[in-house]
Amino acid sequence: MKHPAARREQACLFPTSGWREFSLIEAIRKISAASGSKDRLGIGDDASAHCPEPGCLELVTCDALIEGIHWEWAWCDPETLGRKAAAVNVSDIAAMGGVPRRAHLVLALPPGAKEKRVLGVVSGLVAELKKYGARLVGGDTNASPGPWMISLTLQGTVAEKHLLRRSGARAGDWLMVTGDLGGAAAGLYEVKHSRSPLRLISYAAQRLRSPIPRLAEARWLAQTGRVHALLDVSDGLASDVRRLCEAGRVGACLYAGHLPVAMDTRRMAKKMKQPAWTVALQGGEDYELLFAVKPQDAPALCRKMQARLGTACTLVGEVVPASQGLTLALPEGKMIKLPAGWEHNREVHG
Amino acid sequence: MKHPAARREQACLFPTSGWREFSLIEAIRKISAASGSKDRLGIGDDASAHCPEPGCLELVTCDALIEGIHWEWAWCDPETLGRKAAAVNVSDIAAMGGVPRRAHLVLALPPGAKEKRVLGVVSGLVAELKKYGARLVGGDTNASPGPWMISLTLQGTVAEKHLLRRSGARAGDWLMVTGDLGGAAAGLYEVKHSRSPLRLISYAAQRLRSPIPRLAEARWLAQTGRVHALLDVSDGLASDVRRLCEAGRVGACLYAGHLPVAMDTRRMAKKMKQPAWTVALQGGEDYELLFAVKPQDAPALCRKMQARLGTACTLVGEVVPASQGLTLALPEGKMIKLPAGWEHNREVHG
Repeated sequence: MKHPAARREQACLFPTSGWREFSLIEAIRKISAASGSKDRLGIGDDASAHCPEPGCLELVTCDALIEGIHWEWAWCDPETLGRKAAAVNVSDIAAMGGVPRRAHLVLALPPGAKEKRVLGVVSGLVAELKKYGARLVGGDTNASPGPWMISLTLQGTVAEKHLLRRSGARAGDWLMVTGDLGGAAAGLYEVKHSRSPLRLISYAAQRLRSPIPRLAEARWLAQTGRVHALLDVSDGLASDVRRLCEAGRVGACLYAGHLPVAMDTRRMAKKMKQPAWTVALQGGEDYELLFAVKPQDAPALCRKMQARLGTACTLVGEVVPASQGLTLALPEGKMIKLPAGWEHNREVHG
Repeated sequence: MKHPAARREQACLFPTSGWREFSLIEAIRKISAASGSKDRLGIGDDASAHCPEPGCLELVTCDALIEGIHWEWAWCDPETLGRKAAAVNVSDIAAMGGVPRRAHLVLALPPGAKEKRVLGVVSGLVAELKKYGARLVGGDTNASPGPWMISLTLQGTVAEKHLLRRSGARAGDWLMVTGDLGGAAAGLYEVKHSRSPLRLISYAAQRLRSPIPRLAEARWLAQTGRVHALLDVSDGLASDVRRLCEAGRVGACLYAGHLPVAMDTRRMAKKMKQPAWTVALQGGEDYELLFAVKPQDAPALCRKMQARLGTACTLVGEVVPASQGLTLALPEGKMIKLPAGWEHNREVHG
């Protein structure tokens, strides 16, 4: 939706000459069509249309990436950014136990946005969606008075019996996470303090730029029927365990010394002058899975996931009654109230 | 999706103190719940979920409003803006013959965004959705380094037999529009040249701020089974007739002297020093319906729509073979090539 009158009065706000909305939509349609869209109606009408499958739930999620908040061009190339915009949304569909299907993209482009960059973003996004079986089927292009904005709405489906909720954790459950934590936060520190951040290919920088949604792991976990509650760790473990506990009306105790942290993240944590566990606890954008299972189910689940998918699981805490609140067992054994997130982090850790 | 590390380093970018993502989501959830959401899963998990109805197509559309491009706070209050964000999306679902069902909202808020303003936008949006039978069921909140951004994704449904496409117009069809054109463009000029634009309650200013999606009209037209092609006029008649013709591989001749223009729009056109028909032809955001029907069906359709819904329809042109291209019959009788839109408008009309 664009106001032509606004466009006229602010012609300079619209992308570079030759970049009209229609040609941009046409270019996006071509990139998307190359990935094999077979929808009843895709890009090019007032709305896209498809026939939902019978017998399953439809899922919808949306996540936006905004220049200057979520990324800087100094440390992320267009294709990688497009891939990330897709991946973070796929992660949300995965965290419901579903598979991603159809995406709608809203772009806001600053004056002078280069064709190559725009198409790079779209190409990366379409390629990443395709990797997980999803397609770009519609969207909206806009001028922006300043920052780039990439807002994706992703629809997915899940058999009702495989739906993974945030609620459902029970006192006594173990809290597990896949993979390792804190990498993206370490990577953000690293790219911000690097002289050539675009060329950085450290583990931490890759975790920041190229998150890998745990789609196969979540699907597999959903099919075991053993998971009481699950979500993806997008805002940091401290924030997300709080969400899981609020949804399930339970408390939790996390073990700081147990949090899985990669070697490269430990290296960066030293430069950040923070214990590795605080980076793991409060860094965001890890897109790992946090889930609650019965203690007796946990060992077999971990062993099988490792064997089938090559993904490690770590016990990071346990679910307790709501009355006990949210606590953190420090590596030296002391128990403290769980820090609330980055805002409180400053109070707790200076 | 928010990067906590980014949030920490750019704490000033996040809304006013006390405004955390969670409390904002909670407030949005409350506003939305008050409108009676009954989804399988609404706001508060990784994705929303619902059971699609069998035997019908699902429609999805998204349209964003961006501060400085689509509106200025100087001339639009928060509730009205929220209503508009809903209305422009409802218009797209209507233009497919569907009814709106479920919406996802992505907000990007600049530093210091006021609670009252944010909740005003959300309240207006939820109220407007409710008016048309739809609900807010999910979304994403973000910091913005500058402008406000309100991006809505709206899902709807339509029985396949009632689907209204852009394609399907045939040579010989009449081109009809509902209501009148150019009001929003005239309103934009008016608010931009007013000393107290927020208080302006002229017809043109209202057309700009408070578009009324033609949902009932589109539904009724869809059910007649007489419409060959239809879309909503969001970017201006000149642009949108081009879309209809490209989709249907036909040409068209529009009659400048026939375009329906309200008295207030004519008044503003004089101030704009443009013939009223150029404002009607090239102004955007009218959200009227443009549709193609057989000449013999048109009179009865217009009469019945007027009688049932109180909405006038006007003959504005005819569909011709593609080889004849897009032309405009000027009021004085001369035929010219149809101006392509605002960009070309400057060349054509100085």
